[in-house]
Amino acid sequence: MKQTHQKIYDLAAKLYPIPRSLTGDGVRQTLEIIKELLPNLEIHGVPSGTKCFDWETPKEWRIRDAYIVTPSGKKIAEFGQNNLHIVGYSTPQRLKMPLDELKKHIYTLPSMPDAIPYVTSYYKESWGFCISYEQFCALEDGEYEVFIDSELFDGVMNYGELIIKGESEKEVLISTYICHPSLANNEVSGPSVATYLADWIASKKRKYSYRILFIPETIGSIYYLSRHLEGMKKNTVAGFNLTCIGDDRAYSFISTRHGDKMIDKIARHTLKNIDANYKEYPFILSGSDERKYNAPGVDLPVISVMRSKYGEYPEYHTSKDNLSVISPEGLGGGFEALKQMIEAIEANEKYRGTTLCEPQLGCRGLYPTVSTHDTWRQVKALKNILAYCDGTKDLICVCEKIGEKIVDVLPIVDELRAQGLLEVCD
Amino acid sequence: MKQTHQKIYDLAAKLYPIPRSLTGDGVRQTLEIIKELLPNLEIHGVPSGTKCFDWETPKEWRIRDAYIVTPSGKKIAEFGQNNLHIVGYSTPQRLKMPLDELKKHIYTLPSMPDAIPYVTSYYKESWGFCISYEQFCALEDGEYEVFIDSELFDGVMNYGELIIKGESEKEVLISTYICHPSLANNEVSGPSVATYLADWIASKKRKYSYRILFIPETIGSIYYLSRHLEGMKKNTVAGFNLTCIGDDRAYSFISTRHGDKMIDKIARHTLKNIDANYKEYPFILSGSDERKYNAPGVDLPVISVMRSKYGEYPEYHTSKDNLSVISPEGLGGGFEALKQMIEAIEANEKYRGTTLCEPQLGCRGLYPTVSTHDTWRQVKALKNILAYCDGTKDLICVCEKIGEKIVDVLPIVDELRAQGLLEVCD
Amino acid sequence: MKQTHQKIYDLAAKLYPIPRSLTGDGVRQTLEIIKELLPNLEIHGVPSGTKCFDWETPKEWRIRDAYIVTPSGKKIAEFGQNNLHIVGYSTPQRLKMPLDELKKHIYTLPSMPDAIPYVTSYYKESWGFCISYEQFCALEDGEYEVFIDSELFDGVMNYGELIIKGESEKEVLISTYICHPSLANNEVSGPSVATYLADWIASKKRKYSYRILFIPETIGSIYYLSRHLEGMKKNTVAGFNLTCIGDDRAYSFISTRHGDKMIDKIARHTLKNIDANYKEYPFILSGSDERKYNAPGVDLPVISVMRSKYGEYPEYHTSKDNLSVISPEGLGGGFEALKQMIEAIEANEKYRGTTLCEPQLGCRGLYPTVSTHDTWRQVKALKNILAYCDGTKDLICVCEKIGEKIVDVLPIVDELRAQGLLEVCD
Repeated sequence: MKQTHQKIYDLAAKLYPIPRSLTGDGVRQTLEIIKELLPNLEIHGVPSGTKCFDWETPKEWRIRDAYIVTPSGKKIAEFGQNNLHIVGYSTPQRLKMPLDELKKHIYTLPSMPDAIPYVTSYYKESWGFCISYEQFCALEDGEYEVFIDSELFDGVMNYGELIIKGESEKEVLISTYICHPSLANNEVSGPSVATYLADWIASKKRKYSYRILFIPETIGSIYYLSRHLEGMKKNTVAGFNLTCIGDDRAYSFISTRHGDKMIDKIARHTLKNIDANYKEYPFILSGSDERKYNAPGVDLPVISVMRSKYGEYPEYHTSKDNLSVISPEGLGGGFEALKQMIEAIEANEKYRGTTLCEPQLGCRGLYPTVSTHDTWRQVKALKNILAYCDGTKDLICVCEKIGEKIVDVLPIVDELRAQGLLEVCD
Repeated sequence: MKQTHQKIYDLAAKLYPIPRSLTGDGVRQTLEIIKELLPNLEIHGVPSGTKCFDWETPKEWRIRDAYIVTPSGKKIAEFGQNNLHIVGYSTPQRLKMPLDELKKHIYTLPSMPDAIPYVTSYYKESWGFCISYEQFCALEDGEYEVFIDSELFDGVMNYGELIIKGESEKEVLISTYICHPSLANNEVSGPSVATYLADWIASKKRKYSYRILFIPETIGSIYYLSRHLEGMKKNTVAGFNLTCIGDDRAYSFISTRHGDKMIDKIARHTLKNIDANYKEYPFILSGSDERKYNAPGVDLPVISVMRSKYGEYPEYHTSKDNLSVISPEGLGGGFEALKQMIEAIEANEKYRGTTLCEPQLGCRGLYPTVSTHDTWRQVKALKNILAYCDGTKDLICVCEKIGEKIVDVLPIVDELRAQGLLEVCD
Repeated sequence: MKQTHQKIYDLAAKLYPIPRSLTGDGVRQTLEIIKELLPNLEIHGVPSGTKCFDWETPKEWRIRDAYIVTPSGKKIAEFGQNNLHIVGYSTPQRLKMPLDELKKHIYTLPSMPDAIPYVTSYYKESWGFCISYEQFCALEDGEYEVFIDSELFDGVMNYGELIIKGESEKEVLISTYICHPSLANNEVSGPSVATYLADWIASKKRKYSYRILFIPETIGSIYYLSRHLEGMKKNTVAGFNLTCIGDDRAYSFISTRHGDKMIDKIARHTLKNIDANYKEYPFILSGSDERKYNAPGVDLPVISVMRSKYGEYPEYHTSKDNLSVISPEGLGGGFEALKQMIEAIEANEKYRGTTLCEPQLGCRGLYPTVSTHDTWRQVKALKNILAYCDGTKDLICVCEKIGEKIVDVLPIVDELRAQGLLEVCD
């Protein structure tokens, strides 16, 4: 298990330096690395300008180099040094201008003076550089040169899609994004955990099918939904958006729009048992793809599972969200929580006893002959499972009602089913 | 706005000295003064003894003068000095009697020794005087003369009715009473606020129609309901009983019988945003006309909106409930709260977005180019309005869900409707 | 009333010494004593080995004598001294064995070293003795003689059944058990209170019929349900399991499986008004016959009413649960609480007013002419009863809603019905 956690971290470290954006070579390079681990991943390309709901897909952005030359001839804000220096989707420029003019195109973060902020301008043509506030304050007067070797052209927007077939057409959605440059928690943690989760899901027979998406944020989910909405509405029983799942300071999730779906209950139950201080954020604080999946008319039961929520940790959207923020423990904690939730989803049926009144447990070896505290806890759990599995509530509700953890209940349910005392209701 | 608050106070001051009762000249004089401001007000008269549900309308009471002459020849408890001195509906008397006998007909308030209490005997023929407990204690022994020049006769019970037509037959009820003598908060505050509210309602086009009643308490609402029940049950979407709405010590309301109507939610939302310490009184503590409007089988969604609730402030039902208890600020605060509630009722539809998934906001000028804290708050509110307006919940529920004030939400809803992004559901 | 409480205690004291078990002479002797007080009690016998649901009835157990002879020739653990010394359903033995061997058959309670524990082995053939831990520690090495003069044979399992017919076929179940040997709170309190409750129920005309059962725990209720399930499911409106209802340290009840039945509300309301510190135990902590009555597919609305709950008081299932634990006050408190609950069940209809709007109270003598605090409380209660009896909620819900005790409300309801102002809805 620990070994897997380290592998997740190693993948994150490999993906970290790649200069990603909504579109372009960085996205393709990222998807190719993931495909080495998940050979069945299909990589798709959507032409620029494709209509999807109220939106259309953006032009492809190619960035080769970008920097500023100071009056004294020093190169600063070099793209090659840190890909956060260039505002995402900056148009090509070769200009000279005084400092005052240049400042209109420079973004800093005065509240964190040694950090480079992360800025994009996807939906309005523009250009700019991001530097630390310290560097900004030290800029000398005089004439500056600006050089951006970029291109905005009709190309494609890429994404990856992996379908793992289960017994049922009903499916679970796992979605993560691959469109931020060198950000660790708020980017590479998501695809890294998703990759190893896909690997684990595929490792045994599943009741549900799994739809696993590696997409650019916002426009990626909007495009994908515009092409698969009907089937996904029909079949999706639960879903996860994976983001910021690599640090080890918290466990949290954003509920579905109304907070009343099976997956909300499973997330609450699972995270509470992992960390009594876990945080549930209401949907009104959501801002990633879970927002699109839950939109009215889309209405998929999708939550975001996170360690520290985006926007809630100090390094968010700065150059400080680097590999030191995430760890094998942080990534591994998120990975294990997701595994527990998926096991719960797979077992979460409405069950019903097969005997009227209570079955006799003693003659079936289900009643302890020597009683210890632990065996009595189990008998109590077993009897309460039989009492509350009356065909009206699913297993996660039964667990909450009887005050037992689903991880403890699953083996008892298996035993009762094996003995013919419990059956699944339609 | 302040000017209107002063006008409300001026009207209250003008109505204050008039000797009102359930019936009679004082009621008619009060209605005539209101009609000067609301020319469309219709003044009705109902003959004494008219059956209405389990009740019948009372005889008309005319009172010209009343006083007691002490053994030493001093006139006390003079009606002309304070109309609270005479028990409402006292029968005519011209008697001589010793102090002991007289005391059976004198009402005082030992807990507030310098105040004259307010007492009536509407439904049982009787007579009496109200004086301060201090005056009562100083009464000398000896023979007293009692003089009451009153009349109980078959006349009429009057009330005022104003219908303001809106686009819809659906209507909002505003009811207030005009049957107490010189009491300020517990009488003239209600009709004074109702008058200027009617004026404001009529000043622009409304979705709903408004039924505004100036009636004697209890028997007035019972009579009116007995004659208009079917139509009111069919059309009334919300209603207000206005009473004790002139002091500035509190904001409060009495909920509908089950506390679960649209108007309850609007009152909670509005008053909470005006005064975090506002009080909601459950219906079991109600005792004014809201009780009749909410009675089983009547079931109109009517609340009482008050500053300090009747029975809950020290001057209630005494001569101390005079003009010093109310103020332009107190009356104005109630007036503004009611305006907010009415604006909320008018806009409280179920809305639904017109685009699948989220619309693109940037291209519609709905996304800030420069972001400040305030613009982001608005974008967050706008996105959450779109997320929760899914046709299932009305706007007040959406506001509660997304944690926004309806006064802030209304202009955003207007903008989204203007841009064709939001529409009213049937 | 006090007299009845003493009688309940006297019955408990008479039943205490009898050596009961699931079956046998002790049970029959107990039922005969109860029949002296309830002549209509029917005593039934079910042959051993009768199938009932997943179970079958046990063999009859006859125990004449049992003891151990120590190496020094002393008789210990004599059945005749305390019937808890012998493990229930022990098979006949006449053996010699060393101390080490004997110890495998001896049960003690180290946490309460001077108490004899209560142990049975109903469903697996076995034998054993129970002694105090102090006595156990003092056992000398050497050879011991074991003597158990018992018999397990095909006989009968007995129970008592009393049906008290009311106006309706709908019925209330009262169930208690008669299968523990000399235990006071956890045995004789139940049948003693049930006996006098049956007597009180039969003393006046009832709306509901009453089914009162004196049965061996677990197998008794399972057998009875297997033979009467259909009728009981159709007719049972509420039910009580009576156990541990004789000490005076607490009031408590175990709710029905979902805690949402009429009887749950009545128990909460009644016990709260008797003792603000009463305890409600969720059904997941249940372990007596209420568990069988509430099982899925059985689904009878049965609660257990107790003073101190089984398993929650220190003397439970030991020789210390003797007559000093219970008292006339303890038994009487439980008895009175049950009477209140039964009165509430009998009156718990949905009522509806007969007049539209509010009736006029004054002309019916229902409005105080002189008002004191007490009369006003009553008028407030009366008006709120009329306001909330709208045919949608039963009386116990109305009482909770209006904040009145049902014991105070019942006479007002009677008066309103007598005056024709309130009627029962279908």
